[in-house]
Amino acid sequence: MSERLTPLTRSAYPWHQETVLQWADSDIYGHLNNVAYLKYFDTALNMSLIEHGALDLSPDATDPIGLVVQNGAQFFSEITFPTRLWVGVRVEKVGRTSMNWGFGLFSADSELCSARGTYVHVYVDRATRRPVPLTEPLLACARALAAPTDI
Amino acid sequence: MSERLTPLTRSAYPWHQETVLQWADSDIYGHLNNVAYLKYFDTALNMSLIEHGALDLSPDATDPIGLVVQNGAQFFSEITFPTRLWVGVRVEKVGRTSMNWGFGLFSADSELCSARGTYVHVYVDRATRRPVPLTEPLLACARALAAPTDI
Amino acid sequence: MSERLTPLTRSAYPWHQETVLQWADSDIYGHLNNVAYLKYFDTALNMSLIEHGALDLSPDATDPIGLVVQNGAQFFSEITFPTRLWVGVRVEKVGRTSMNWGFGLFSADSELCSARGTYVHVYVDRATRRPVPLTEPLLACARALAAPTDI
Amino acid sequence: MSERLTPLTRSAYPWHQETVLQWADSDIYGHLNNVAYLKYFDTALNMSLIEHGALDLSPDATDPIGLVVQNGAQFFSEITFPTRLWVGVRVEKVGRTSMNWGFGLFSADSELCSARGTYVHVYVDRATRRPVPLTEPLLACARALAAPTDI
Repeated sequence: MSERLTPLTRSAYPWHQETVLQWADSDIYGHLNNVAYLKYFDTALNMSLIEHGALDLSPDATDPIGLVVQNGAQFFSEITFPTRLWVGVRVEKVGRTSMNWGFGLFSADSELCSARGTYVHVYVDRATRRPVPLTEPLLACARALAAPTDI
Repeated sequence: MSERLTPLTRSAYPWHQETVLQWADSDIYGHLNNVAYLKYFDTALNMSLIEHGALDLSPDATDPIGLVVQNGAQFFSEITFPTRLWVGVRVEKVGRTSMNWGFGLFSADSELCSARGTYVHVYVDRATRRPVPLTEPLLACARALAAPTDI
Repeated sequence: MSERLTPLTRSAYPWHQETVLQWADSDIYGHLNNVAYLKYFDTALNMSLIEHGALDLSPDATDPIGLVVQNGAQFFSEITFPTRLWVGVRVEKVGRTSMNWGFGLFSADSELCSARGTYVHVYVDRATRRPVPLTEPLLACARALAAPTDI
Repeated sequence: MSERLTPLTRSAYPWHQETVLQWADSDIYGHLNNVAYLKYFDTALNMSLIEHGALDLSPDATDPIGLVVQNGAQFFSEITFPTRLWVGVRVEKVGRTSMNWGFGLFSADSELCSARGTYVHVYVDRATRRPVPLTEPLLACARALAAPTDI
């Protein structure tokens, strides 16, 4: 994600989650702290996996879990408390054992995102923590959330 | 809050905020970390003040701000990711320069709260940080959120 | 912890942990957020248990774990970034299946704590999550950290 | 930071900060959450600016502040509670109004970092939030922390 990206609209994201900005996520400068953006992306990522049947958090589950090998965000505008948030989610690339996720964080009624995020997830066996090929539920999730890398 | 409280129902709270559990708020034991509960209470507290016209976060605002002199929670049951959250808010006591706030955190469709929280807010002048008598907007907020200490 | 406490000195705490204030823990008001104080207490609590051989986080450990049934803090003065922190820890009360922990958060070279915290931990079986009598390592930890409730 | 980086040793970082892992920063999988790594980088970044006289957080300060336009990390190994942390800091690139920061997070006695981070900071006027050329203290800080992009 070294090249400079541009903000996207909500229509670039096939799935989204709505939430509210937490008070503690603002920092000394009175705006949403850069690190805290990623908490919203991380939450939406796991929610979309679960909603698509591709992640099971019950203690005796045996399907693969995703480990984050890369995360990051680019920031376009500030977000201030209080506001509702709309977190857009899409899958930008599918590998043999990995998926590249893309996110957009939108405040209240703004049409352009305030930041874009990227995560690279490698799916691993829970016990051995070794990469495993994407399972059918993961591939189905990737298809449902597929979006062009850049609109 | 040293005595042992009992869980309340949603009807005990005249105001509430809906949100979702953040992924990062679960800890090693796989449940919502005890400290993170208070982030949801703190957020709801400030949201309700703002919604009732009793807190202005704009840089040139001059009305009092609330400083937390005491916080705390009692826990009744665990909350696990993912879940929607319902944060109940009420004012339990009004002093000359302070208000005692009460909270309940409810997951998804549960009728009893998983935890109750208390905050004591002292309202101070922004510049001097000295306590000031409750302003009319704060008193109106307190009236709107008033609830018996124990239902 | 409903009565108003007074700040203590470092000598009131038989064990302590040194750390630094995190940037993200300051809030809109430019000081350490009230909720974030408890993260430092929670960390020190678990560190002191581990250091006294009373908590084992390895996946196949079978000794009891502590569940927080009550937490809270009282605040005396503000803490601002950057600063080193000194977290004092003591055990204030021992029950059959529970321990009451007390904390003090001291910034840099200040002799009086900026806040005092309390946690009530109930020790439970990992699988059943039912309370169990304090084990010998927990009792030894409690003895090592014992302090008068109020100095 | 789209290319795959390799872990560095402590000697790649001219400045560092020591701290301890916070309990709340572990997630459901029992390891340091990916987002939380960036909190340690963000803290060390601001600490190094302050220590080099390039950031003043007092309310009436007028020198530029750094806004994060890009952050991110690559992960090489897991970190588990409890552990001391060593956060390495360096400046990888200097622009007219910006600096590229590089970080490494090392647990306890490990010689290779568990993750590398990057931040791009643009320095702006506090009031207008418009980019300004790097001031002499910022340039001096950049010289003190200069390191080859890849060792």
